[in-house]
Amino acid sequence: MRPLILVSNDDSVNAAGLEALISMLSPFGDLFVVAPDVPRSGASHALTVTSPITADKLRESEGLVIYSCSGTPTDCVKLAMSCLLPRQPDLMVSGINHGSNSSVSVIYSGTMGAAIEAAMLGMPSIGFSLCDHSADADFSASVRYGKTIVQEVLRGGIPKGISLNVNIPALPFDKIRGIRVCRQNRGMWNEDFVMKPDPLTGEKLYWLTGYYHNEEEGAEGTDETVLSRGYISIVPTHFDLTAYGIIEVIKRFEKL
Amino acid sequence: MRPLILVSNDDSVNAAGLEALISMLSPFGDLFVVAPDVPRSGASHALTVTSPITADKLRESEGLVIYSCSGTPTDCVKLAMSCLLPRQPDLMVSGINHGSNSSVSVIYSGTMGAAIEAAMLGMPSIGFSLCDHSADADFSASVRYGKTIVQEVLRGGIPKGISLNVNIPALPFDKIRGIRVCRQNRGMWNEDFVMKPDPLTGEKLYWLTGYYHNEEEGAEGTDETVLSRGYISIVPTHFDLTAYGIIEVIKRFEKL
Repeated sequence: MRPLILVSNDDSVNAAGLEALISMLSPFGDLFVVAPDVPRSGASHALTVTSPITADKLRESEGLVIYSCSGTPTDCVKLAMSCLLPRQPDLMVSGINHGSNSSVSVIYSGTMGAAIEAAMLGMPSIGFSLCDHSADADFSASVRYGKTIVQEVLRGGIPKGISLNVNIPALPFDKIRGIRVCRQNRGMWNEDFVMKPDPLTGEKLYWLTGYYHNEEEGAEGTDETVLSRGYISIVPTHFDLTAYGIIEVIKRFEKL
Repeated sequence: MRPLILVSNDDSVNAAGLEALISMLSPFGDLFVVAPDVPRSGASHALTVTSPITADKLRESEGLVIYSCSGTPTDCVKLAMSCLLPRQPDLMVSGINHGSNSSVSVIYSGTMGAAIEAAMLGMPSIGFSLCDHSADADFSASVRYGKTIVQEVLRGGIPKGISLNVNIPALPFDKIRGIRVCRQNRGMWNEDFVMKPDPLTGEKLYWLTGYYHNEEEGAEGTDETVLSRGYISIVPTHFDLTAYGIIEVIKRFEKL
């Protein structure tokens, strides 16, 4: 039996990055796509809890099923596992995101929200992001490199509970220097809401913008650094937020 | 000058848990509340990126300002820092959540999304959750214990970038046995969507339900275990998702 691969993203079922991902994955197995009906960038690991969600089957052909879902990326994965999939998938892949999910962006990312949820549910999973936000980004190099990464995950596996956060520099295939396994860079998005009054009512409307501040420019072994040098970054991510090194530091709270 | 404390939650500006939090914090400083206008449980670390958000000042009195914001809990913190606060706060506190945020629930939690965002922006932060989902939960013991925890954070500080995930068992004050500093328990929510057809259209509507599966029942030093024994749990959380122990395990991907 061919492997069954669950697919999702956060840019919606209509995104060019999803089409590229389908072409990347088709050689490896039967694809079962459950993706948001509208763009859900920044959805993080959010769930829809105060209303029901819906799922419409858009396509069912040999080796490819596509559902459009009204929920978040994490909802898509949960609903697929609970109600839609014919059996447990062998792999879950999310993306290809239009834009980087390196450094702290992994926290806000709906693409990685879906991938990490899959890891929580026991599947090996990969989130792919291309460092180019444009709607018509060129995914050809991502597809070629992505194939080798997917093949290796299917062949050799990855540890349970782990999701690979793969970021690909916006370079032509022959300019990409290879792959580096690394850690999440320390940095932050400096929020900078822009206020524009509503043209009709005058109400203050705040639009989220921001710029990334790298707190360890050029540090060895981080995703930001290897991307800046032309490498694809792979960060193994997990879903344990405990700061283990701090447990002893704050033991004094037990004496309150 | 009295400390300035930024306050948010995910159960909305109208939640009883927010009112309890305000009474807990009032003795320690001036409070600046920016909370969602509607319940945002399960919002995780989501941001609103495809539309603008609004903020309405509901109250401004001696030592207490309250804004209702149309965004997510994380948006509330970012907007407060960018546009609303008069100066950098000394502390950020989120909650008191109606319901537990122990174990993996920390990932889905809007309460902890807000608290972790504050930690990312450089403030010491605390998320409080009471293990009782009901709208009229009794927060009196949470308020009494919470005061001692807040006082100690203001006095002795916590390491930069850390947010305390505090869960309080649903017990009367004199039945709570104390505080334990611990790690996030391993477990998962088994999704179990319930399908109910739309009564008008017949469309399939899926409602998220689920049950928690504890993967290490009774393990020493986890939040689930200490809560089950009648202690308050404090897990120091951070925003680095890197699985450091796995970097060497998957170095083979560099040879692809």
